[in-house]
Amino acid sequence: MMDLFEAIRGRRSCRAYLKDAVEREVVEKILEAATWAPSPLNSQPWEFLVVTDQSVKEKIYTEAVRCKEWALEKSGWKWLGKYGVDFLKTTPVIIAVIGDPKGTGVDMFMEEGSTGYQLACGAAIQNMLLAGHALGFGGLWFTLFDKKAMRKILGVEEKKLPIGLVCIGKPLGAPGAIPRKSFQEKTTWV
Amino acid sequence: MMDLFEAIRGRRSCRAYLKDAVEREVVEKILEAATWAPSPLNSQPWEFLVVTDQSVKEKIYTEAVRCKEWALEKSGWKWLGKYGVDFLKTTPVIIAVIGDPKGTGVDMFMEEGSTGYQLACGAAIQNMLLAGHALGFGGLWFTLFDKKAMRKILGVEEKKLPIGLVCIGKPLGAPGAIPRKSFQEKTTWV
Repeated sequence: MMDLFEAIRGRRSCRAYLKDAVEREVVEKILEAATWAPSPLNSQPWEFLVVTDQSVKEKIYTEAVRCKEWALEKSGWKWLGKYGVDFLKTTPVIIAVIGDPKGTGVDMFMEEGSTGYQLACGAAIQNMLLAGHALGFGGLWFTLFDKKAMRKILGVEEKKLPIGLVCIGKPLGAPGAIPRKSFQEKTTWV
Repeated sequence: MMDLFEAIRGRRSCRAYLKDAVEREVVEKILEAATWAPSPLNSQPWEFLVVTDQSVKEKIYTEAVRCKEWALEKSGWKWLGKYGVDFLKTTPVIIAVIGDPKGTGVDMFMEEGSTGYQLACGAAIQNMLLAGHALGFGGLWFTLFDKKAMRKILGVEEKKLPIGLVCIGKPLGAPGAIPRKSFQEKTTWV
């Protein structure tokens, strides 16, 4: 049992995991938490692929390295070169969250794009990360991949979109707190 | 104090509010919860406009009605005609969440679009809804508006995107539970 605000404030992005397997029951609690997220017209536009197979993890790792190098070239952001993604090979469980553009609600008629289903998947992922944290596990919302390549690796049909990979495992060490700008700096009262 | 899983499972979309004002302290706790969401490279690509001014609420309402009629015509979804949005005029507080496309991380170089900042805002909104629920308030993630029109109403600069409106207030009656498909139906183990 963990207080909601404690979970929200205490959740960290974890990039180093122990190899200990994550019990299926834990994964199921995390998945159930995901399904309680709100979505446009309750479309529930998410699917989950739970990856524990080492060969699939290796493919995800290889794609992340390729994507990192490509992004480094495009961006010139030098820190990217040092950003290690080795943990993708050792994370016990990676849950791929796949979005279905059909579940996007009235948004589908809007000129500025149909991202309602993606936002709902974002809410579902946040539930997953909070649930994992409350259960004593570290998590990471990983997006450093090309969506087409990830579709191939995971066998996802073309009309659906891999939104993010959620890594789950017992943290190796304690991930540090990342500072936030205060809400005051971000808020205007109208 | 509310258990995380209780908050996740118990949160409802609330479409009828009492007129009671929401204390500033409550709004601040909800905003603070939002800022703890994860974001690409910790870009924190969100801003909040807290709307309590009645004339602004009326404009939001008028835009929602316009958008509803337009969407009804486009979609032919008859239920939309009956979907009332009057609560926008009586909700004590509406928090507009504005996303900054600059805070989208490596995603900005990706071919399939740069929605990382929107997903982060989705996670922040989920934190807000959970926080509101834990504090005894009803909430709604409202998106039935045209983004250009909402920019004008709220005075948002063109390069930023109104992602969603979060309504907050004491619920009038108890919003019903909406069924979910089980995670088993949504999950493949790889």
